[in-house]
Amino acid sequence: MTVSRSICFGFLAVITVGTILLMMPFSTSSGMWNNPIVALFTATSAVCVTGLAVEDTGTYFSFWGQLFLLMLVQIGGLGYMTANTFLLLLLGRRFSLKDKIAIQQSLDRPGIHGSTQILRSIIALTAVMEITGILVLLPIFNADYGFNQGLWLAVFHSINSWNNAGFSLFPDSYIRYQFYLPLVIPVSALIILGGIGYPVIFEMYLWMRDRLLKKPYRTVFSLNFKVATSTTLALLVIGTIAFLFIELRNPETFGTVNFGNQLVLAWFQSVTTRTAGFNSIDIGQMTTAGLFLTIALMFIGASPGGTGGGIKTTTARVLANCTKAILQGKEDVEMYQRQVPISLILKAIGVVVGSTVTVILATILMSVTDPSVNFIKIFFEVVSAFATVGLSTGITASVSASGKLILIVTMFVGRVGILLLMAALLGDPRPRAIRYPEENLLVG
Amino acid sequence: MTVSRSICFGFLAVITVGTILLMMPFSTSSGMWNNPIVALFTATSAVCVTGLAVEDTGTYFSFWGQLFLLMLVQIGGLGYMTANTFLLLLLGRRFSLKDKIAIQQSLDRPGIHGSTQILRSIIALTAVMEITGILVLLPIFNADYGFNQGLWLAVFHSINSWNNAGFSLFPDSYIRYQFYLPLVIPVSALIILGGIGYPVIFEMYLWMRDRLLKKPYRTVFSLNFKVATSTTLALLVIGTIAFLFIELRNPETFGTVNFGNQLVLAWFQSVTTRTAGFNSIDIGQMTTAGLFLTIALMFIGASPGGTGGGIKTTTARVLANCTKAILQGKEDVEMYQRQVPISLILKAIGVVVGSTVTVILATILMSVTDPSVNFIKIFFEVVSAFATVGLSTGITASVSASGKLILIVTMFVGRVGILLLMAALLGDPRPRAIRYPEENLLVG
Ligand SMILES: [K+]
Ligand SMILES: [K+]
Repeated sequence: MTVSRSICFGFLAVITVGTILLMMPFSTSSGMWNNPIVALFTATSAVCVTGLAVEDTGTYFSFWGQLFLLMLVQIGGLGYMTANTFLLLLLGRRFSLKDKIAIQQSLDRPGIHGSTQILRSIIALTAVMEITGILVLLPIFNADYGFNQGLWLAVFHSINSWNNAGFSLFPDSYIRYQFYLPLVIPVSALIILGGIGYPVIFEMYLWMRDRLLKKPYRTVFSLNFKVATSTTLALLVIGTIAFLFIELRNPETFGTVNFGNQLVLAWFQSVTTRTAGFNSIDIGQMTTAGLFLTIALMFIGASPGGTGGGIKTTTARVLANCTKAILQGKEDVEMYQRQVPISLILKAIGVVVGSTVTVILATILMSVTDPSVNFIKIFFEVVSAFATVGLSTGITASVSASGKLILIVTMFVGRVGILLLMAALLGDPRPRAIRYPEENLLVG
Repeated sequence: MTVSRSICFGFLAVITVGTILLMMPFSTSSGMWNNPIVALFTATSAVCVTGLAVEDTGTYFSFWGQLFLLMLVQIGGLGYMTANTFLLLLLGRRFSLKDKIAIQQSLDRPGIHGSTQILRSIIALTAVMEITGILVLLPIFNADYGFNQGLWLAVFHSINSWNNAGFSLFPDSYIRYQFYLPLVIPVSALIILGGIGYPVIFEMYLWMRDRLLKKPYRTVFSLNFKVATSTTLALLVIGTIAFLFIELRNPETFGTVNFGNQLVLAWFQSVTTRTAGFNSIDIGQMTTAGLFLTIALMFIGASPGGTGGGIKTTTARVLANCTKAILQGKEDVEMYQRQVPISLILKAIGVVVGSTVTVILATILMSVTDPSVNFIKIFFEVVSAFATVGLSTGITASVSASGKLILIVTMFVGRVGILLLMAALLGDPRPRAIRYPEENLLVG
């Protein structure tokens, strides 16, 4: 499969170059050659926009090291968003004429010509978002750290927010700004928009343009738009309420502040599980229930065509609607007056089965290599790596070298494996030479 | 839905009667009225053939209490096996003419007349298996505990093994016989046969009969037979090897004995996750990796039409084959030269989604009600309750009353909810009034 192979090799090549750059003496603040495992881990974490770190980014790496890391994040995030969007187009082309028309309608341009347009449009969107982020963050960091350092902080954190990468130059991530709405709101917006994906933002843009120009026709939103926005919204709200309820009495996180501030903390914790990886509370101090909820939300993750990870909101929604259909005694799975094709259901199953097997294997292996670490911390770190979230209970820096290698592989599989599964049906469509008779079977 | 409602009410009625009986003073060895939560927990655990216990069965309950418990196990196990088998028949009738023919071929009888036959056949099978178990176990327990107590021990443990219920009159379950093959082998056989289900055993019986009578035609095994046997075998072998590998250096479980004995322990640990719930090692002393592997194996559980729980081997296999299909770029899911119908795929998704949501909710709730308990022990106990396994790290007796209530609900949902999901498509098949156009969507 050409598509899969180029995706795989592309990621590997960027990680290799990144590792070499981060190993150089000018990349570390100590001026010494970097530890190869630290370099490999950081490069993988950056290219997969995970944000897990074995060393404190702000003090361990020199300015050059931080710049390389930021470039790797940018390449990783942009590459994933682009690959993901093109796969949607290719899938559309292969599967459904109707869908193809819908996409081309929204792009106003037919055929292959659209691809260059889309690439340009994605780059433009990224630039607009990141520059807006820099302009909003600059005054805050300028006031606290002066212009030079403030600018670098704004650039670094804006790019990391839009790409859902989660590296921070502050050792405590955003805990120092945990109640400061002028930072919490724009960072949340960048994370959510980056995670909801290019196709959704593009449709939103078209809708707004048409409304402003008072076009006579009504915009038809795609199924992807409806599912991604409604599921993201639902997860954000449910997450906020659940975190509030669970952590309400934990003095180490929410317990000692007033209700308004608790709401801000719960909201940001809910947002960051859309695989951003920044944190405004100490994750290591959360209750067990809070950690487990975070694990579940991280596993679902962001929406396709964006920079976030996880099995994706749409995947979860397809499976939820399958369940709903079976409970209602229907054999057709529907979503917003659309029939869900069987190929999509199979793909959703493939993504979840592949993800579950990867997480279970990585968790068991890490429990073997690091037997003294508390189980939920291992489970948390594995899901965080797999869904390219980057939240950490603090064990990543201290686990054994084997444990770190397991996390490296998990991050790579979580990012590239999911793309490959998406691309799976793009290969030569096999002719259905044999069609076997159906036979029933008990399940459950 | 008549079928679902009668299943649900049937289980509730038996649990209610059981709770009342177990509350009576003559049911406890102290001769006092029983604690209602203990009675409710034990009755639910018995009817759902789970085997989780809040008190030591052998000392806390009087002979009468133990007898009631055994009767509840027998009713629960037989009821589940029968309901499950009839659902397979009904499903066969509704969905597939071919399947209907296959089932009727194997029963040699058409139409409704088959039902009474099947019920009789299930009862006969249960009697044969349990009596065989008693006869094999009696000499062992007779030698160690005398005839009277030995007979009761043999009856109690044989019925609990065949029904995959896992209650033991020994406080340490089978640890005292952990290397004793004359006990380990027949108990393993009862557990595996009880868990593999009536339809499989019946087909096995027909095949043997035909071979003995030298019938000219070749028996055609059903898809259910092939999937249940091959998946069960694969899980048993993989489980044994994995437990051996993981627990090899743990002095509290396998570490200090020779390789032959390690193999026996690993084998029994693998067998018991087919939801029997007996244990021959101290579960609370297993490594984290071993506990997590046990959780994964318990969640998959046994085969349909048997006494075991979990999402079932066939469900796991349907989803695995969906994943295989999508990786091979196919849109048809095949199994042993049979096409898997979409209704079956939806049902498998429904079972897994429902199970996962139940386990996650119960785990989060129990982490809130019992925050001081180690997370993996809560997760383990919840999955053990849900998949009606009955293995315990030892926390069930000590968790709060709310925690016990959560486990009670989890056991009930794990047993009845799965049956209801199976029965879901049996309701009035809704006419497909509207069929919406298909639209694609990105997943993963
Ligand atoms: K991230
Ligand atoms: K059991």
